[in-house]
Amino acid sequence: MERVYNFSPGPAMAPLEVLETAQREMLNYHGTGMSIMEMSHRSKPYEAMHNKAIADLRQVMRIPDNFKILMMQGGGTLQFACVPLNLLGDKKKANYLVTGAWSEKSVSEASRFCTVNLVASGKDTKYTTVPDPSTWNVDPEGAYFYYAANETMHGVEFELTDEMLAKIGDQPIVVDTCSNFLSRPIHWNKIVAMFAGAPKNASSGISFVIVREDVLGHALKITPTQCDWTICAANNSMYNTPPCFSIYMCGLYFEWMIKSGGIDVLHEISKRKAAIIYDAVNASNGFYNCAVNPKFRSNMNVPFFIKDGDKNLEKSFLEEAEKAGLYTLSGHRFVGGIRVSLYNGVPIEGAVKLAEFMMEFCKNNSN
Amino acid sequence: MERVYNFSPGPAMAPLEVLETAQREMLNYHGTGMSIMEMSHRSKPYEAMHNKAIADLRQVMRIPDNFKILMMQGGGTLQFACVPLNLLGDKKKANYLVTGAWSEKSVSEASRFCTVNLVASGKDTKYTTVPDPSTWNVDPEGAYFYYAANETMHGVEFELTDEMLAKIGDQPIVVDTCSNFLSRPIHWNKIVAMFAGAPKNASSGISFVIVREDVLGHALKITPTQCDWTICAANNSMYNTPPCFSIYMCGLYFEWMIKSGGIDVLHEISKRKAAIIYDAVNASNGFYNCAVNPKFRSNMNVPFFIKDGDKNLEKSFLEEAEKAGLYTLSGHRFVGGIRVSLYNGVPIEGAVKLAEFMMEFCKNNSN
Repeated sequence: MERVYNFSPGPAMAPLEVLETAQREMLNYHGTGMSIMEMSHRSKPYEAMHNKAIADLRQVMRIPDNFKILMMQGGGTLQFACVPLNLLGDKKKANYLVTGAWSEKSVSEASRFCTVNLVASGKDTKYTTVPDPSTWNVDPEGAYFYYAANETMHGVEFELTDEMLAKIGDQPIVVDTCSNFLSRPIHWNKIVAMFAGAPKNASSGISFVIVREDVLGHALKITPTQCDWTICAANNSMYNTPPCFSIYMCGLYFEWMIKSGGIDVLHEISKRKAAIIYDAVNASNGFYNCAVNPKFRSNMNVPFFIKDGDKNLEKSFLEEAEKAGLYTLSGHRFVGGIRVSLYNGVPIEGAVKLAEFMMEFCKNNSN
Repeated sequence: MERVYNFSPGPAMAPLEVLETAQREMLNYHGTGMSIMEMSHRSKPYEAMHNKAIADLRQVMRIPDNFKILMMQGGGTLQFACVPLNLLGDKKKANYLVTGAWSEKSVSEASRFCTVNLVASGKDTKYTTVPDPSTWNVDPEGAYFYYAANETMHGVEFELTDEMLAKIGDQPIVVDTCSNFLSRPIHWNKIVAMFAGAPKNASSGISFVIVREDVLGHALKITPTQCDWTICAANNSMYNTPPCFSIYMCGLYFEWMIKSGGIDVLHEISKRKAAIIYDAVNASNGFYNCAVNPKFRSNMNVPFFIKDGDKNLEKSFLEEAEKAGLYTLSGHRFVGGIRVSLYNGVPIEGAVKLAEFMMEFCKNNSN
């Protein structure tokens, strides 16, 4: 079988040349006579690769010098704990905006360590929109304001507007970018920290934390060493053996991003791919339905139902899609329906082919 | 350049056929049209691979059914925190035996969460031996007894003797096997839990915790979800996105172990390789010196000095070794000297070639 188009919500499709490089270098990395995964992380070739990955990420995401780039493990889930452990300091409360399943999880994790002030929740709209900032309740006693830039399950993505920023006031802002990191520029002047666990646009088994250095140094005493951003920063993400191969894969990925024209070009491509799928949904006259408020529709994850959630049609859709070489399109098990994930590794041709398939399937099944 | 013999302390040399399989399957895993690292961890091919890796590990290490196999992240360092977080229960103390740098680190991490009772320490012998059990002080109020089966930096490896077990009494035993896991059988009836972060005999970016199921269920409230063994067990190590590619590499590794004859055969090979190097040290008439008590010399890591730690000779040794295709032989930066690590991936021929080189170097430099 040839390679297929794979719309997995993560881990996700990778650029072919990234995989080909990894394949080529598997037995002998840059003439060292070893695989990168066989090397001591204190060896010169490993350290050079590690540092280049960090430098390339800084370049491609235009990360200011006063932000530290940390490579950690444990995914977003570990960071849900790391955020309060590192940022509460002597405060006892934090502000959380909930716009989907993942920010909901971050609230229950933070509740182990502090009192969570719920700024607002999209739950009563089934997470189809971002609550209007006029309804937000931000506690000025909170240590920080937390939100998720993209909700993978529910397909809600947004940036902070001026109205939102006014509501947040002088609370330091922390953002979960697990599922849209590397797909769009980040406004570093608005935030103090972001994290992306096992980023969908790169490689599983690694998390990135990018944090303004002046907020470091205040981890709670009960913080496990491996969760302490300050220790990680002081050790250049090598306090202990790092996830070497995942870092290597990310490094190849960053090189590919730079070669592809950088983050602005990738963002444009990302918007185009999403538009191709949303257009197919819109053109179907209600055969496909996306419930998400058009203002907050994600470029990364496009969830929709067929008619009102017809299970038989969903089953045929998934089966016929696979026959056409279009894979991993079922919705999250908690949400159902269809979900199309369009991370950087999915080429435009993949989105075009899927849209064509969607139109054809609609025509054949709309009676 | 051809592939070299690589005596790295970890990440470490892998069996060639493991790397070749990974290389061959990189673009298309088992005819799925995707790399294993591009696949949703909820997909059937991924889950099948994940479960087979666990089953193969259970088989090759003869793990009883009442032990859960957990695949986690964060290395041994995260487990240094997970052990007290999961096992303290309502006790406030734990017993730690210190036989080298890594058990020393585990003590300082545990001290964040409880009072550590130091059973005994090899520090005053510069960690060249295991303190005699007659000197051990085990507090019966402790929640558990903790030790490290192999100290990578100092080259001390041991199994619990009957005299040691008598001293430990009914304290549940937890063992750090980071650097000798998969190199020898484990006596499951003696312990309640073991962990191996980023095992040297397999792949970095993954930790194994193998824990008797009856001790689960008592994590402290401040335990981050990602550190909670019970949650990890209940979710078959897929609470969130696991380190998919590292698990895949471990799976290939376990298949190779089974094909190689299993753990008893590998243990014999491991002992032979170590004997080849220790014999070369002993035959050198004091040109090479290993300070570790012969009763507790590690099969995994053989540290030695040239004469009394002659820096110029060390430098020549390392340079000439590389010319002979023998790599990553310098001692740990905290210890100095030479260190030969001999994990499963290093073939016997590698040990033989290194021993020959050592004799030759001794002959040329002993005057």
